[in-house]
Parts: sequence; C-alpha cells; structure tokens
Amino acid sequence: MKRILLLVASLCILGTSLFAATIPEGMAPLPTQVPVPSNNPMGEAKIALGKQLYFEPALSKSGEFSCNSCHNLGTWGVDNQQFSIGHQWQRGGRNAPTVFNAAFWSKQFWDGRAPLLEDQAKGPPLNPVEMSSKDAESVMAQLKEAGYEPLFQAVFGKNSFTYDNMAKAIAAFERTLITPNAPFDKFARGEGTISAAAQRGMQKVEEVGCTSCHSGDLFTNNAFVKFAYGSDNGLKSVTHDKGDDHLFRVQSWRNVAMTAPYFHDGSAKTLAEAVRVMAKVQLDTELEESDVSDIVEFLKTLTGEAPKVIYPVLPRPAGHALNWKD
Amino acid sequence: MKRILLLVASLCILGTSLFAATIPEGMAPLPTQVPVPSNNPMGEAKIALGKQLYFEPALSKSGEFSCNSCHNLGTWGVDNQQFSIGHQWQRGGRNAPTVFNAAFWSKQFWDGRAPLLEDQAKGPPLNPVEMSSKDAESVMAQLKEAGYEPLFQAVFGKNSFTYDNMAKAIAAFERTLITPNAPFDKFARGEGTISAAAQRGMQKVEEVGCTSCHSGDLFTNNAFVKFAYGSDNGLKSVTHDKGDDHLFRVQSWRNVAMTAPYFHDGSAKTLAEAVRVMAKVQLDTELEESDVSDIVEFLKTLTGEAPKVIYPVLPRPAGHALNWKD
Repeated sequence: MKRILLLVASLCILGTSLFAATIPEGMAPLPTQVPVPSNNPMGEAKIALGKQLYFEPALSKSGEFSCNSCHNLGTWGVDNQQFSIGHQWQRGGRNAPTVFNAAFWSKQFWDGRAPLLEDQAKGPPLNPVEMSSKDAESVMAQLKEAGYEPLFQAVFGKNSFTYDNMAKAIAAFERTLITPNAPFDKFARGEGTISAAAQRGMQKVEEVGCTSCHSGDLFTNNAFVKFAYGSDNGLKSVTHDKGDDHLFRVQSWRNVAMTAPYFHDGSAKTLAEAVRVMAKVQLDTELEESDVSDIVEFLKTLTGEAPKVIYPVLPRPAGHALNWKD
Repeated sequence: MKRILLLVASLCILGTSLFAATIPEGMAPLPTQVPVPSNNPMGEAKIALGKQLYFEPALSKSGEFSCNSCHNLGTWGVDNQQFSIGHQWQRGGRNAPTVFNAAFWSKQFWDGRAPLLEDQAKGPPLNPVEMSSKDAESVMAQLKEAGYEPLFQAVFGKNSFTYDNMAKAIAAFERTLITPNAPFDKFARGEGTISAAAQRGMQKVEEVGCTSCHSGDLFTNNAFVKFAYGSDNGLKSVTHDKGDDHLFRVQSWRNVAMTAPYFHDGSAKTLAEAVRVMAKVQLDTELEESDVSDIVEFLKTLTGEAPKVIYPVLPRPAGHALNWKD
C-alpha cells in the first residue's frame, strides 16, 4: 500500500496521466539487490573466475559444453530447445530454465531440489546426459589441465582448488545476471507506460488468480505447487515421497516471453498456449482468446535489459592440447 | 632494412639495451589494418550484426552450434579438439583453424580453397558434419524465424536478406578479431624484450629455414605448400588435380601456442612435436631438443592480446519457440 501511495505521489510530481493504482497489490519492480549467502560473499575476482568457468567447455568431459551452451547469455539464459543436447547428443528430460534472475530464487531446478545456485552448479558437470564427467575429481582434473589452479588460489586462498569453490565462483557470477528495467518495472515506478492490452492483461492475471502463485517482484512465490501435467513426477522423482508427486517450483514470469518453449517438459511452444494450459490445469478456467492475448501482452512487459557481459578469455596451457574424453 | 634502421633509431632514443638487429629480416609486428574487400566495407551496424550471427546457434540445423562453438573467442578462436564435434556428434576430418587474424590471410580453410572470409563463412552451415542445413534457404528460414530479416535490412537495405549478406556480416565482424601487441611485436617495436631462449629460437627458425614459408608480419607467406604427411590430400580433395596433392595453406604462427592440437589432422598434441615434425618433413632437419625448446619459446612470444568482445543479445521472437531440426 505504501508503495502504491509513493508511486501515486511520484506520478503526481511527474504530472503524467499514468494511473498507478491499476498495478495490482503485490506486483513490484525487480529488486536491485540479489540475496548473497554469507559463506560466499561477492568479489570482483571471484565473479571474473566464475565468468570464465561459466563459459568453460572444460567443465564437460568432451570439451564441448559449457554452462552457456544450454543457458546461453545471448538468448535470455536458455537454449530455446525443448530438451537440451548433452554428451554424445543425448537429450535431457526437462527444459533448461533460464539463469537470468535465478539468483533471486529460493529453489533451483524444475523440481526445486537445490536451494542455492551453489548447489545447482554442481549438478550438470556430473549429469550423464549433460556434461557427463564421472565424478568431481575428473572435472577438477580437466580444469587443472586448462590452468585454473592458480586462478582459484588467487580468489579462495591456499588449497582451494575444489569442486565446491568452482560452484561458488559460478554462483557469484550468476548473481550478476539480473535483468532490470522491464517495461513493467518502469511503469510501476512511474517512468513509462505499457500498452492498454498489457494493462488489461495485468488486471486479468489477478482476476483469474494466476497471481496467487505468480506474485511479488519476481512473479513467483518461490513455492512448490502441484502441476498435474505430463508424466514427470517432479520432486517425487528425487525424494520418492508420495506427497511430492508432480510438485514443481513456481516459475518466475521475468523474461518469460523470451524463454520459449514452456513447462518442465518444454511441451508448450507458445506463451499463449502456456497461458491457456495453466489457466485450465491450475485454475480450472477456460480463458477467452482476447484474455489470453492480453495476458501475453502483459507478460511481454516483463522482459528486462539483458546483462552486458564481456566474453572471457579462458586459461589454456601454452603449446599443449587438452585431453578430452569422447 | 629501412624498418631495422628505424628500429635502431627508436631504440637509441629510448636508450634501451635491446639489440634490434637481432630481429631477422622479414619478421615484423602484426599490421594494425586488415585488408577489406571493396564490395564489403566495414561499418558499425554490419559488425554488430556479424557478431550476432557469429554467436547464433540458429545458423545450425539443430540450434546447437554457432561459429563460436568451434572457433571459440574465449579460447583463441579454436576449440582445442582434434576434430570438432558437429551435427549429431559427428566429427569432421580437419582441425578447426583459428578465426583470430584470419582476416589477414589470402586463403581460408586448410586446403586454402576459399580466398576470403566471405567465402569461408558460407561453408560450415551447409557442411553435413558441421551445422548440417540442407541448403542456404533452410539457414535463412531459421534466421528469419529468429527475427533477423529487419536487422539485415537495416544494414544492407531492401531485399537484402540473403545468404551472401549473412556471410558478409560475419566476415566484417571477423575482421575485428585481431590480436595485436604480442611480446614479439613489442620487442620488434623496441617496447619490450623477450627471453634469451626466445631470442635464440627466433634466430634458429631463420637458420633452419622455417621462415622460408613462415615469414612476414603474419609468419606465413600465405602460399600453398606440399605437406606430405598423413592421408589427407589437401587441395587435391577439392580440385581433383594431381598437382594439388597434399597442398595445404601455410599456417600463421600468430597465437600458435594457444591453438593446440596442431596440423590439419590435429595429430600433434604439443607445439614441440609440431616443430619437430615440421623440421623433419619440410626441411629434412633433425632438431636438437634444446633448439626445439628455444623455438617453442619464440613461438610463445607470438601470442597477442585477445580482442575484447561484448557478448551479443540475439534476436528471438517474443512468446514463440524456434523449430529446430534434430
């Protein structure tokens, strides 16, 4: 309420015709500060190392895949594939979620099994259908060959060349990948407007009940919610607990227009289809086509500014080939 | 000779103890200007489009590979693989050459079959073991879906959405990928020194005769030379002309320490091995191990400064998945 009053005040000052009270309670601009765990403080050198590791194909057994292969920073932190291509052209079973703003989430992976980016980053290098290394030691051996040991020591100190620190550095870099100043954010701050259709969509998602889960500054409540759709058992496939069947993390709507295809199984090829299916499955609502279209227009206003990333130069031994495993 | 005199003059002015006359005739710093074909002038917007296309996985049928997959700007324009991984995990038959400074070469590909970057860029998208599109139209259809048509028009004008212009934009970007200020360059300009071992190596490559081909500011004479090594027929496999058997382009030594493994077949895992083999096969010389080591030290001084590249944001349709082909 305080926020809305402030907005109204600032809009009066600006003398615009924007009607700030139209922004539903709970919706808010993207925060500018990401949460940082106390055991992994941010630092320039750590972020630089994390960026190298993020783009490092030596994280994969074959030398082919980096984090950026599936979570491409040029395409909104995703690869636009239904299921990403991994080691020896295998495909995973879940759609690659975006890395953009993942720093804000309290659950990582579609099944939310990891709370922090530090936990998430340790998964893909060892996943047999992704980067496919047999263990953490094999990953570190490849990074050592590439020349990372002194870089770790410069950031983390002596005897710090560990898989955990690899994940910490990557997580620190990922915490810089936020996308501020979406049209909605500017609108909410009284700095710009969004189309009439987008404004109708904004009201509609509250009216229909989408915002019971997709709320707040991230447009997700960061909760587990049952999505009884498809054959994937969600969290249950990790915990084997019957109560976790078909539980998935509520996805953020931030940049959702740029991260097609949709759902954990990448089965919805358009945002319109995703909106239609979610309304039906989660809210038992058959949306009018005009409402679907308005909601899509609103969701498009949640596309922010992509982070500016200078492509890193990766360490490599002078005059020596690296030994990839096929 | 004029160059050496100038150098001596500038060194005297600097009052350093560098002995410029030790630089063999013909060796020279990397030029600062790349040659630009008259039908493809450089331009900021064209370079920006070319950068997007260079990092664009939609250039490949599967949506997996971009130019950068095999010619990775983070690893000196190569992928450190013996043979790059392509569509459905196929491997090519030749080692991926670096894109860095390729703008200076008058022959592209190992067999030198393309004179210009514009010609080279049209190859990989249609190569069945690389990006694997069936024809230029299929590539353009994917680029259209991604949203490139208006970007081409902004750069090249009306009715310009063509495969040829795709190659022109990529080539324009590639002409920015040069690596100046290698330790050798600074040494040659009297701005720094190189180790005693490197200086011995520098003399040795001239003495042995390596510089009969690897000469000039690029350390290549840009010629075709017979390299009777391995089963690859080189230019003959393109022209089917007996006279072209085992003809390969003389590779530049620029950044050679960072582009292992070596040779068209990537069979030499270390620079030392490459030096040893080349001396034997091309010059019938068995080098002393100390000479090999000195030459390697010299070659390491040819590693320049990698270009600073801001990772591009690629066009994508809002709310729609792209349709990749497996």
